[in-house]
Amino acid sequence: MQYRPILFSCAAILMMPACAMDLSVNDKQWVETKASQENAIRTVLSDQQSAWNAGDIDAFMSGYWRSPNLRFASGGQVTYGWQQTRDGYHGRYSNRALMGSLSFDELQVDMIAETAAVVHGRWVLTRDSDRPSGLFTLIFKQIDGDWKIVSDTTTSAD
Amino acid sequence: MQYRPILFSCAAILMMPACAMDLSVNDKQWVETKASQENAIRTVLSDQQSAWNAGDIDAFMSGYWRSPNLRFASGGQVTYGWQQTRDGYHGRYSNRALMGSLSFDELQVDMIAETAAVVHGRWVLTRDSDRPSGLFTLIFKQIDGDWKIVSDTTTSAD
Repeated sequence: MQYRPILFSCAAILMMPACAMDLSVNDKQWVETKASQENAIRTVLSDQQSAWNAGDIDAFMSGYWRSPNLRFASGGQVTYGWQQTRDGYHGRYSNRALMGSLSFDELQVDMIAETAAVVHGRWVLTRDSDRPSGLFTLIFKQIDGDWKIVSDTTTSAD
Repeated sequence: MQYRPILFSCAAILMMPACAMDLSVNDKQWVETKASQENAIRTVLSDQQSAWNAGDIDAFMSGYWRSPNLRFASGGQVTYGWQQTRDGYHGRYSNRALMGSLSFDELQVDMIAETAAVVHGRWVLTRDSDRPSGLFTLIFKQIDGDWKIVSDTTTSAD
């Protein structure tokens, strides 16, 4: 057993490149994952836009975290909860004319962690009588494999 | 050398608890780090409040990332850059009476990564003639060891 310390060292050295390689693979994977996750987030937003423009607020709401902890902030008011946020949208946009046509522009997606991202952008509602617009800052989290908005802070230009 | 595979396995097994222990220490450290980082972020905000209430916009600005990429969003307008944001504050709050007394309330700090956090809160300016208020969503990042606001989205209740 006199060789044991030497062999132990050999094993340790043999294992080191494996660890280093693993990190490098992880880094590369993270870059690729980042790009695909950013796409997944952009898809959520594009799906929301389509749902809105099809007059379907409930489908639009599927982009949000279905939780009492969802946070929606606008003006001076904070609304907590998916249900309350949905009710707010239904109350404020009670018919198709009020919903108008929604577009999201100037989107910036910042993947700040493997399961969290910040999205900045601008919203515009084109309606027959007016064209309200503003900015938004969304916090996305990956929950059970899906990207969901957990916090929405919306400003109004008007 | 017939013992080598066995010794290699032994070495691997001997190293496993070390790795597991290391992870556990890291987890514990992360919980502790999280609490101390949250405190550091709250200190930045409390320092900003004190600076504002001392009439010192430049000291207030030290809470922001000193970069052309700082993002400040309010109403329908996005301002990029530390200098531009500073100039905006100086223009809008050109004297002590306009600055009034600032307070940050309802602060929620969400440490979403080791070097990134989201802060939600409410701001109130108490002035002689009015009391404007609103909400804010800040993205903090740890840059060169210091926590700085890299993105500020501010709403107005009025």
